[in-house]
Amino acid sequence: MSSLTKFHGLENLKNATGQELEIALQELMGGIKALDQEALAGMQSRVDAKIKPLGSLGVLEDIAQQLAGIFGTTHPKINKKAVLLMAGDHGVVVEGVSAAPQEITKQMFYSYLNGGAGINVLARNAGADVISTDIGIATPLDAPELMAYRVKNGTDNMAKGPAMTRQEAMLAILTGARIAANAIDSGVNLLATGEVGIGNTTPSAALISVFTGHSVEDVTGRGTGLKDDALINKQTVIKCAIEINQCNPDAPIDTLAKIGGLEIAALVGAILEASYQHVPIILDGIISSAAAITAAKLAPLSTSYMIASHSSEELGQHLALHQLGLKPRLDFHMRLGEGTGAALMFPMVEAALKIADEMATFEQAAVTTGDF
Amino acid sequence: MSSLTKFHGLENLKNATGQELEIALQELMGGIKALDQEALAGMQSRVDAKIKPLGSLGVLEDIAQQLAGIFGTTHPKINKKAVLLMAGDHGVVVEGVSAAPQEITKQMFYSYLNGGAGINVLARNAGADVISTDIGIATPLDAPELMAYRVKNGTDNMAKGPAMTRQEAMLAILTGARIAANAIDSGVNLLATGEVGIGNTTPSAALISVFTGHSVEDVTGRGTGLKDDALINKQTVIKCAIEINQCNPDAPIDTLAKIGGLEIAALVGAILEASYQHVPIILDGIISSAAAITAAKLAPLSTSYMIASHSSEELGQHLALHQLGLKPRLDFHMRLGEGTGAALMFPMVEAALKIADEMATFEQAAVTTGDF
Repeated sequence: MSSLTKFHGLENLKNATGQELEIALQELMGGIKALDQEALAGMQSRVDAKIKPLGSLGVLEDIAQQLAGIFGTTHPKINKKAVLLMAGDHGVVVEGVSAAPQEITKQMFYSYLNGGAGINVLARNAGADVISTDIGIATPLDAPELMAYRVKNGTDNMAKGPAMTRQEAMLAILTGARIAANAIDSGVNLLATGEVGIGNTTPSAALISVFTGHSVEDVTGRGTGLKDDALINKQTVIKCAIEINQCNPDAPIDTLAKIGGLEIAALVGAILEASYQHVPIILDGIISSAAAITAAKLAPLSTSYMIASHSSEELGQHLALHQLGLKPRLDFHMRLGEGTGAALMFPMVEAALKIADEMATFEQAAVTTGDF
Repeated sequence: MSSLTKFHGLENLKNATGQELEIALQELMGGIKALDQEALAGMQSRVDAKIKPLGSLGVLEDIAQQLAGIFGTTHPKINKKAVLLMAGDHGVVVEGVSAAPQEITKQMFYSYLNGGAGINVLARNAGADVISTDIGIATPLDAPELMAYRVKNGTDNMAKGPAMTRQEAMLAILTGARIAANAIDSGVNLLATGEVGIGNTTPSAALISVFTGHSVEDVTGRGTGLKDDALINKQTVIKCAIEINQCNPDAPIDTLAKIGGLEIAALVGAILEASYQHVPIILDGIISSAAAITAAKLAPLSTSYMIASHSSEELGQHLALHQLGLKPRLDFHMRLGEGTGAALMFPMVEAALKIADEMATFEQAAVTTGDF
């Protein structure tokens, strides 16, 4: 079943009406199923027979089970891996919420295409592709084909009104879903989330505050390196944006439209599509976690398809993951974004499956078994 | 300079006198040097020029610097990787300190040789060899050559007296050093520590208690799965062993002899030899950490050559690492031993160097730089 031939009932995303987008999104969200418990239990039996104390490989065993449940087989295999790196700009940067200038979003986007950025190096080290897509960079790119998926030239300033219309948000979600679907069609069955967008820890913190109920102070960090005064300003801007837009956590699409971002919305769509197509997706830092918590609001079962990776330097990430029932596993004090933390998790997921496939059983190895 | 031709002045370890072992060990400990600060700073400059906010790759940057300092070059390269897996039995198991029977040490040793154990799978996944050596299994192996490095048929019961003589402990240390030297001679320049030995969380907890000053209760865990009553018994046994042997933290070789283990001593030697030969060594769980804290007592500069990996389920490991100034980076709730946690760290170390070698600089990528 190719997702390209009939993408949630839509022939052409860009020309779709608001009504058509609503229907497609409903189909996507409604099509996400629970994990296959039988396959999951079957994997547990396989792993329990291996020559080690029960449960002694901890989270590796959990991941092996999760993948069995996702793929619906006791013998899941990873074929191809990819980082979905979504790019978008943020109107709110005029409020001084980022230490870095907006032009860096575009400059870094070219770096991803050229293969010289951190995520390219770490993905390559893990044998994964990087699929970089412009969802909403503010200014034109050198070639029109690079902007084929662009929804809008950056969001509007959320401190003054909605960042996007509901239709733009839905289009960005479904665009992200389409990019994930394209990757899956090409054989990828382990995804990771990544992003670039100067200013995007601001909408991420705003979304996490609204969806978790934690205070803006608790979820807002220094991004690429804000000083104390600028951090306080960032918090004030976020509070203002939440207030002026009258955000309702029970209206996740509207909230995402009002205080989210184009690349964040695309990641929401990528997470939903991965879940819909039974593909595990590794989450990166605070921006990915904001997308994940939004996806979980739209389709709670999507959390079963998520794998947490690193512990970001942004505290909001931890609170978002906590609400999702996830725990970061890598503590490298990273705050680069791009999917760099998620990429470090690829070999761990592969290791989990190799445990199941390659370890000897007690019977094979003639090792004494017992209650230990 | 081959370490094999003249191994710390010793021609033949097994026939060496106590005096010769003392001299060789002094030479080994005394030959460990501080890191090359110039190379370390040079690596920092290289990494700071890359297209990312300063310091945003966190611990990966720290590791890149550490490797530069260890190898004495701004462009360190990993050639070959290996896990040094030391095996030994423990007389103290007669006190009921382990849930698993002693025969499992030998059975698992054969599994390592056959390639079907957890460490074989995880090392293979990381492109590393596993070098398994019998330092002190209690009973004979099938072939004499498998016992070529055996120092003793398991330790004596430390709850009744010293586990080893000082000479046996020194021989085990230098045997471990010799095994590390052999690996380094074969081209390995990234090592990891691993072990097997039913009962060995007991001497490990004892050593950590003595060397850190933390209470036996604080450093003693459930090993492969002790129930509550058995855990209390284990703590009582450890207290008794520390008491009866009159352990002095300022006499590390004697302490290691009295309440340590043969495989633990071999790991001490491997860590010292790695440090002596400017090779980084990744630490696994509580047993490796007990060896590391002992090595640090013998040669404080050896801590600069250590890389922490996972956070073991045994709390004593955390306290040992804390005293060494190290932090675990992987939180997978593992408690298998063998070097399985350390093996998961190999790709992280390689990723750290690839950041330095493969990422573009601000200048190359024409990305705006600034104070962020």
